[in-house]
Amino acid sequence: MPVQASSRVAPLKNVATRLRIDSVRSTSEAGSGHPTTCASAAEVVAALFFSEMRYDPRDPQNPDNDRFVLSKGHAAPILYAAWAEVGFLAREQLLTLRRLDSDLEGHPTPRLPFVDVATGSLGQGITAAIGIALNARRIKSDYRTYVLLGDGESAEGSVWEAAETAAHDTLDSLCGITDVNGLGQSGPSIWDHDMEAYAVKWRAFGWHSIVVDGHDVQAVLDGFEEARRTKGRPTMILARTIKGKGISIAEGKPGWHGKAFKKGEELDKVIKELESQFVAEDEPAQPPGPRRGGASGPPATQRPAPKKGSVGTPSYKLGDSVATREAYGAALAKLGNDDDRIVALDGDVKNSTFSEKFEEKHPGRFYQSYIAEQVLIGSAMGLASRGAIPFPSTFAAFLTRAADFVRMAAISNLNIKMAGSHAGVSIGEDGPSQMALEDLAMMRAQPNITVLYPCDAMSTERLLELMAYHPGPTYMRTSRPKTEVIYGPDEPFAIGGLKVLRKSANDVATVIGGGITVFEALKAYEELQKRGVSIRVIDLYSLQPIDFGSLLQSAQATRGRVITVEDHYAAGGIGDAVAAAVAPGGFTVERLCVREIPRSGKPEELVDYYGISARHIVAAVTR
Amino acid sequence: MPVQASSRVAPLKNVATRLRIDSVRSTSEAGSGHPTTCASAAEVVAALFFSEMRYDPRDPQNPDNDRFVLSKGHAAPILYAAWAEVGFLAREQLLTLRRLDSDLEGHPTPRLPFVDVATGSLGQGITAAIGIALNARRIKSDYRTYVLLGDGESAEGSVWEAAETAAHDTLDSLCGITDVNGLGQSGPSIWDHDMEAYAVKWRAFGWHSIVVDGHDVQAVLDGFEEARRTKGRPTMILARTIKGKGISIAEGKPGWHGKAFKKGEELDKVIKELESQFVAEDEPAQPPGPRRGGASGPPATQRPAPKKGSVGTPSYKLGDSVATREAYGAALAKLGNDDDRIVALDGDVKNSTFSEKFEEKHPGRFYQSYIAEQVLIGSAMGLASRGAIPFPSTFAAFLTRAADFVRMAAISNLNIKMAGSHAGVSIGEDGPSQMALEDLAMMRAQPNITVLYPCDAMSTERLLELMAYHPGPTYMRTSRPKTEVIYGPDEPFAIGGLKVLRKSANDVATVIGGGITVFEALKAYEELQKRGVSIRVIDLYSLQPIDFGSLLQSAQATRGRVITVEDHYAAGGIGDAVAAAVAPGGFTVERLCVREIPRSGKPEELVDYYGISARHIVAAVTR
Repeated sequence: MPVQASSRVAPLKNVATRLRIDSVRSTSEAGSGHPTTCASAAEVVAALFFSEMRYDPRDPQNPDNDRFVLSKGHAAPILYAAWAEVGFLAREQLLTLRRLDSDLEGHPTPRLPFVDVATGSLGQGITAAIGIALNARRIKSDYRTYVLLGDGESAEGSVWEAAETAAHDTLDSLCGITDVNGLGQSGPSIWDHDMEAYAVKWRAFGWHSIVVDGHDVQAVLDGFEEARRTKGRPTMILARTIKGKGISIAEGKPGWHGKAFKKGEELDKVIKELESQFVAEDEPAQPPGPRRGGASGPPATQRPAPKKGSVGTPSYKLGDSVATREAYGAALAKLGNDDDRIVALDGDVKNSTFSEKFEEKHPGRFYQSYIAEQVLIGSAMGLASRGAIPFPSTFAAFLTRAADFVRMAAISNLNIKMAGSHAGVSIGEDGPSQMALEDLAMMRAQPNITVLYPCDAMSTERLLELMAYHPGPTYMRTSRPKTEVIYGPDEPFAIGGLKVLRKSANDVATVIGGGITVFEALKAYEELQKRGVSIRVIDLYSLQPIDFGSLLQSAQATRGRVITVEDHYAAGGIGDAVAAAVAPGGFTVERLCVREIPRSGKPEELVDYYGISARHIVAAVTR
Repeated sequence: MPVQASSRVAPLKNVATRLRIDSVRSTSEAGSGHPTTCASAAEVVAALFFSEMRYDPRDPQNPDNDRFVLSKGHAAPILYAAWAEVGFLAREQLLTLRRLDSDLEGHPTPRLPFVDVATGSLGQGITAAIGIALNARRIKSDYRTYVLLGDGESAEGSVWEAAETAAHDTLDSLCGITDVNGLGQSGPSIWDHDMEAYAVKWRAFGWHSIVVDGHDVQAVLDGFEEARRTKGRPTMILARTIKGKGISIAEGKPGWHGKAFKKGEELDKVIKELESQFVAEDEPAQPPGPRRGGASGPPATQRPAPKKGSVGTPSYKLGDSVATREAYGAALAKLGNDDDRIVALDGDVKNSTFSEKFEEKHPGRFYQSYIAEQVLIGSAMGLASRGAIPFPSTFAAFLTRAADFVRMAAISNLNIKMAGSHAGVSIGEDGPSQMALEDLAMMRAQPNITVLYPCDAMSTERLLELMAYHPGPTYMRTSRPKTEVIYGPDEPFAIGGLKVLRKSANDVATVIGGGITVFEALKAYEELQKRGVSIRVIDLYSLQPIDFGSLLQSAQATRGRVITVEDHYAAGGIGDAVAAAVAPGGFTVERLCVREIPRSGKPEELVDYYGISARHIVAAVTR
């Protein structure tokens, strides 16, 4: 042990003991939580916050701070304890854990300024950490990113998506620590305490991997130093630990997962035992001082303020035939010209979603996640948490692969801009596995996700620009077939708006479509006009928020006859959105939508076969 | 090369050539598809269907057949070509590929009797293969399970969930083949042609791994033999191949993913080139003969017919206080007593979902997936495809992790019985990451998923028995808090039913709840009774199918006042389900639901704070 190091160990041991005590106290006060999961990680967290990380404890959002992601989110109490120990939180706040009036929730959320992404759904924090580490490159900061995983969560496939992506991107500023305490919730974790089982996997995935005794402070410090010295690949420190370490009634024992110690005799005994573990120290550990810029760039305050981008004057003419997916890629490439916060992420479908147009122009801000949609969305979450404006895109059907990440992005209220192409049966021959027919339901279910669905290239350009600068999580649905450009360059669009495309004083019904069904509604309009029947046609390009005022007006004007038509299943899409919007006016909705698992076939055949073509609209209006 | 083997090689080479020709012809006829992805796998598929696999080509559903899962589903044309080559399909049928009137879809679905699970969302087939292999143990058959993956899909985390689970379960009857053709859709796949990058990963995950030249028939046959001899662990054969092999204009070239050759000159040239690759053979390859039982058990026809299980007389009394999640576990354990098709799968939360009650009674039919929800649902899909009745369960929030698997289970229309516990804000202190508030939206979005939501222990028992024997995918939502038993043992329940719990001639509103909100509605009823106001109270225990007749009647009886109350977000849950059901009667719905991202807090506090408690129902009724 180096001479200068030995004096560092005792104070850090005492920090670890205080973190254990605070974790135990706060969970007992709450009457629930995970004290034993905190106890196994105490030395690692102490070493990170009081020795390894360079950050300003009074300014958790400093852009040059080293970042810490608690992927094992159920250890939240020790995260809060650490921020109390460095002085950012008042110690008495810790006792508000899990209370409705407290931001110290059961699992961390970005309501707290030192939390970048909400965790608690296991295996996600490490994917976000990749995005956070990529962001350091983007802003030319030398901050490092640390992520603490549980051994149990290493069973999540998303962890291995993260492993392959971080290695492929040579993210040597990323350092993971797996707290291998050997116990999951209901029994031993999948590989128990077999440290070699972990090490061989991380090495196979291209990481530098170090096995340490996670309760040996010096070994942990040495591990971090080795990680810092390791170039060209990320490092995973595998810390062998004991769940409930330091608390003899629980130490290494099953049956203590997610249980607080009972206030009174049980708690008092645990605290007394922990207090007996303090050791003599020369002087207490000190948190780091203020952080003023990294070695590789100027401090954040001296960096130029970001410039808002613009898609400029769209290059489409009325009547052009362009797929909205293609317009998406073209617009994104333009938007990235002036604003270097705009980044794009792909899941090996860039030539189908046309995000390749962005890559051509901005290769340094284009990230390839290969066929791994969880890390696609997860790393976008991390990028968004550090100030980037990420546009991850893939087939809309494959965004369901990341549904739990979408859920957590919503909980985090992150500024992530998702795009899903190839919506609905109109993709045709590839069949149901490639057709998104539930993506609107998935996105609309989250109360804070903005959901947009342009029908032509012009509105795609305008909505893309709007979504980039509309705060919070946003989703844009695009389509595979080419559609006619129906909007001119001066047409205004708004988040929460809609377009009334056809309107007269004699409309017998309001027909509301989105994407390709707008054109079916327009065809139905022409057909009905021939028969002397007028309908109102609405392009509902914003599903959430929704313009309920205009919808109510139209419903009233057409004496309550409202028909929705959508390339989506019945539940959760345009029909439900409109029904909820017009319900306060006493209006109901007749829905044309896909009502069964579809088959392969030609796009136009399927649109008709599944009941969402012009013919079916005409039939519904004239019924 | 062994003497007896050499005569096998030439005929298999010719099979491979015919498979290539058929894949090229059928995709060109369709005008789309993936001929080059088929071409790389031709020798592997030829070896499997004409040498390695023991199966009855005229009876694809024979329970003792070796099974083949095409995880790289976009290679569907070669699967169809193989079944034509063995005589099950007529060769001319192949030219109906991707047509609306054909079952030969763009990606395979179980509309075809030789397809167990739909593929086309990458990384799923191998998880299903695990369930198929587990089923061999369950029925004591010695059939082997083969699964063909693409190299691109190896980036999916679900593949590594499958890897860890198959190794942990020592599934030596499982043999994977990765077709490492080096090219993804938009560029080289993540590890390109680096065979060692693949091998080291599979070995690290506990598999036996063999690298072969995937176009060398003898090497492929030797690999399969080595796999068969390998005991105690699964084998992954890593086949180095060339995308478009045998077709010089496309061979190994980017830009040919998902492109059919143009009919006419281009196609003719390709066919001619392939035809030139036929070699001299002594006699053509023969498909295997009929299959009559495995070595380790009697043939399927001699096995006893399965017996239907029963939960028997429930052990609850009116007024008991039992969480529906606990009643779920107890009922499942009882149901498994008589019916050995009933199996359960867990994601390391068996002590929270109470599936541990099943494990205690039936340890041999309980599968631990650890914290890996994709393989949890994926292996359940495989089990379901082979006649088991699998009940995978976890927190409902974590079922979103497997949303894409739920989507594919629906496309496959598999007999999978999912259960999600800890629904809604009523879980309390753990906070939003653990609260399912979009699970009903996810499940209802699929048109063929049955969605059940019992409010008490008695209805949980009854509905569990019903769901087990109701064909197709089914979901049951259970709750964390204890609730009162309100149904007697003779109360009848039905899929698609509901219960009117309070009813009078003077009801001013219909209040519809599910799960814990049924009790809030009953409390509101009592409160309103004191004020002389009567309401109708409905327990909507079946959301899909839904009893629209009874809902319409109630809406009429309460003069159109319908209020829904649910521990779920606004979109896709009870409110939307009821709104769609009563819309044809011209009735609209007022929704009480969770409308923002919730926080941690006490269950009863949160239920009130987020607007779904009795107090809010009373306010809504009296507004």
